[in-house]
Amino acid sequence: VSEMIVRSLVVVLFLMRAVAAAGGPDSALVEKLTATGLRTCDAYAMLARLTTAAPHRLAGSDGAARGVEISRQLMQEKGLSNVRLDPVMVPHWVRGPVEEAAILPGGAHDTVHLAVCALGGSVPTSPGGIEAEVLEVRSFEELHRRAASAKGKIVFFNRPMDPSLLETFQAYGRAVDQRGGGAVEAAMAGGVAALVRSMTLAHDNVPHTGSMGYKDSVERVPGAAVSTVGADSLSALLAREPHLRVRLRLACETLPDVPSANVLGEIVGSEHPEEVIVVGGHLDCWDKGSGAHDDGAGCMQAIEALSLLKRLGLTPRRTIRAVMFMNEENGLRGGRAYASDHAGEHHVAAIESDMGGFAPRGISVQGDSALFLGVSRWRPLFAMLGADKFVQGHSGVDISPTVARGVPGFGLDVENHRYFDYHHSDNDTLDKVNPRELEMGAIVEALLCYLISEEGLR
Amino acid sequence: VSEMIVRSLVVVLFLMRAVAAAGGPDSALVEKLTATGLRTCDAYAMLARLTTAAPHRLAGSDGAARGVEISRQLMQEKGLSNVRLDPVMVPHWVRGPVEEAAILPGGAHDTVHLAVCALGGSVPTSPGGIEAEVLEVRSFEELHRRAASAKGKIVFFNRPMDPSLLETFQAYGRAVDQRGGGAVEAAMAGGVAALVRSMTLAHDNVPHTGSMGYKDSVERVPGAAVSTVGADSLSALLAREPHLRVRLRLACETLPDVPSANVLGEIVGSEHPEEVIVVGGHLDCWDKGSGAHDDGAGCMQAIEALSLLKRLGLTPRRTIRAVMFMNEENGLRGGRAYASDHAGEHHVAAIESDMGGFAPRGISVQGDSALFLGVSRWRPLFAMLGADKFVQGHSGVDISPTVARGVPGFGLDVENHRYFDYHHSDNDTLDKVNPRELEMGAIVEALLCYLISEEGLR
Repeated sequence: VSEMIVRSLVVVLFLMRAVAAAGGPDSALVEKLTATGLRTCDAYAMLARLTTAAPHRLAGSDGAARGVEISRQLMQEKGLSNVRLDPVMVPHWVRGPVEEAAILPGGAHDTVHLAVCALGGSVPTSPGGIEAEVLEVRSFEELHRRAASAKGKIVFFNRPMDPSLLETFQAYGRAVDQRGGGAVEAAMAGGVAALVRSMTLAHDNVPHTGSMGYKDSVERVPGAAVSTVGADSLSALLAREPHLRVRLRLACETLPDVPSANVLGEIVGSEHPEEVIVVGGHLDCWDKGSGAHDDGAGCMQAIEALSLLKRLGLTPRRTIRAVMFMNEENGLRGGRAYASDHAGEHHVAAIESDMGGFAPRGISVQGDSALFLGVSRWRPLFAMLGADKFVQGHSGVDISPTVARGVPGFGLDVENHRYFDYHHSDNDTLDKVNPRELEMGAIVEALLCYLISEEGLR
Repeated sequence: VSEMIVRSLVVVLFLMRAVAAAGGPDSALVEKLTATGLRTCDAYAMLARLTTAAPHRLAGSDGAARGVEISRQLMQEKGLSNVRLDPVMVPHWVRGPVEEAAILPGGAHDTVHLAVCALGGSVPTSPGGIEAEVLEVRSFEELHRRAASAKGKIVFFNRPMDPSLLETFQAYGRAVDQRGGGAVEAAMAGGVAALVRSMTLAHDNVPHTGSMGYKDSVERVPGAAVSTVGADSLSALLAREPHLRVRLRLACETLPDVPSANVLGEIVGSEHPEEVIVVGGHLDCWDKGSGAHDDGAGCMQAIEALSLLKRLGLTPRRTIRAVMFMNEENGLRGGRAYASDHAGEHHVAAIESDMGGFAPRGISVQGDSALFLGVSRWRPLFAMLGADKFVQGHSGVDISPTVARGVPGFGLDVENHRYFDYHHSDNDTLDKVNPRELEMGAIVEALLCYLISEEGLR
């Protein structure tokens, strides 16, 4: 109860500040940021350029290299300072020309083609493909129980994301073990491949890729995702014909690491140039769709956040640095390299947008309670943008190596019911992004950067 | 400052209640509503049925009659009580087979076709069309100043919705006078027709219709909307060739009023069946698109709100009544008839969803400050749904005649950046609706209905 009273008093203080701020310089700033940003929605124009010129930006690909160059150009055109590339070696996995699966004819059915795609990092099948019976399971625990039945089979992991959860990221988090660890678990049970239900709440025929892993001690078997419609068809047919056979062909391969880069640009602080606020997203994306929401949105929002401050003629006290991180999807090399390369600098904060370019709801603060209460004093200003849902939680994957060194982390929280309909699939294209919603995220980031720059966090 | 302190104390009380409620029966209810609703998203299945079988539901049309029948069927299938139709006479305007406009060849240009549609209620042109020069204005005030130049011309109202405003409904409200009153103003200045820039923030070639009015004392000239792309083309050409000529043809007409109906269904209150909580939307829509967001969404959410309470086995103390109002778009006959027909009943509250089937943000409360403070005690519960933005303001058009009689009004506020991209146009179709976002609105309405039913408002 004492904590309740303390919190209540904190809220009273916030409100007094809110009343004091009404009509004050901070609320005028929010109004100017909003009007200036929404008038032209520049983040969208930048995202259109990125996704058109470099739709596929998987680490190590030519598309990723084009994405690096376009980001560098955009930062220079927007007048950022110290625009530069931080080199980093990245993995180079390629999907290859073949990915197909079919239920072979038998029983009462003809051939049934399944919409599949290789999971990122998978080994290929033999050129002729794998042909085997299928064991359907809903969890690793079920697979362990039924391991005796798995030998020589394709293990089909078919536990859906739970639609009854309000937070789609929570539903994703509770299902994605199948994608990340399915191939290892299948191999340990004697299976010959892993076929995983796509991580999406949509019911359509589009497969969703994403990263998967291997263990050195376990044989490497191929891993593929199947569309939710395909998964349901396969499951229904298995219920009638448990010995049906599936052929899976994948031509993906892992090539040697190649050089790539993080892309950086700044507004140099007028009073404390050595104190740095990082704001960014990841430039790489999967080779499906064009990474519009994941995470072209977050990258272009970061550039736009700095550009907005410049358009308003603001000169922040501390340095604000936009960073496009490379290789979040299948390695985190860029995020790790950034933390290591810049370990000697004084980072005040790290901010990331990587939940899609939807309307912002608030900020997830990664740090201690004192930090959380401190930034909560700004909530009334974010309420003006509809983004005052402040919670303590995870901030962002790319900035996690920086946050792990004690830097306060901030993740942009957005309205995300639609996110996994698009995520890692051919559905993640520019037409799914609304220019105003995207811009609002940039406005929230600009406000957060500026408040931290001017007032500090401690 | 004293008001500030009072508000702060109120917030403290809310927080104490929130802490007390955590894990209590109310928060358990919110969790059950959420899980049950999101698991199947029934509102979307109902909306698919409505928009497929009756895409065009303009008052007086066959489509509207089909919409009435489908709503009645849905209410019965969901087990609502006292399902019935309240008859009401409605206007019957029809678009007709012809609506076209072209910039006639001349100067340096060939014929330029403009994407137009008649505004609802417009008189037709003569069969051969109106051919005239064009006067472009941005406001009625500019037209008044330049009235000497308007004689015999098509008056082109080209003031855009202001993109720099955060709230799209505010931008709409500041531009829509051109659509509603443009034909009257044009005629008063001696013009022969009104051509109005579409009320949308999107830049595309789709015209947006909507209602317009006439005055008995002013000649009736035709009114049409032109797409934003068409408006920009016309404006650019006018800057070079001020005497260019446009031909406009419309075949719309107003037929005699016809019978239609509001559709009602209930959960009868267990303790106070005579006390009624209304929740609804409007069943009619324009004859473009299929009225998915405007306002099939609000109608199906109301049925789903009641269905949800029934699926949870809840027996509300007061009667909760879903109402599908007829003829919001061009007459408000249904809303007025409801208020009049049911004036003798004790209405506790009226709730409307008519801002699109997007993710809910909160509730706009129409009533006095005591009412607002009273319902604000529930904010922590709505925060669990991301819908705790409570403001005092307008509730809904259909319920406005009921609210005018002193009944507290509640409008569902939603994330609406995309709304006017679709509104009153061919873009307003089912594929623009996300099943989870739509369902969340129904869940918020179910919660509000139930809290009002169980706790009352006074």
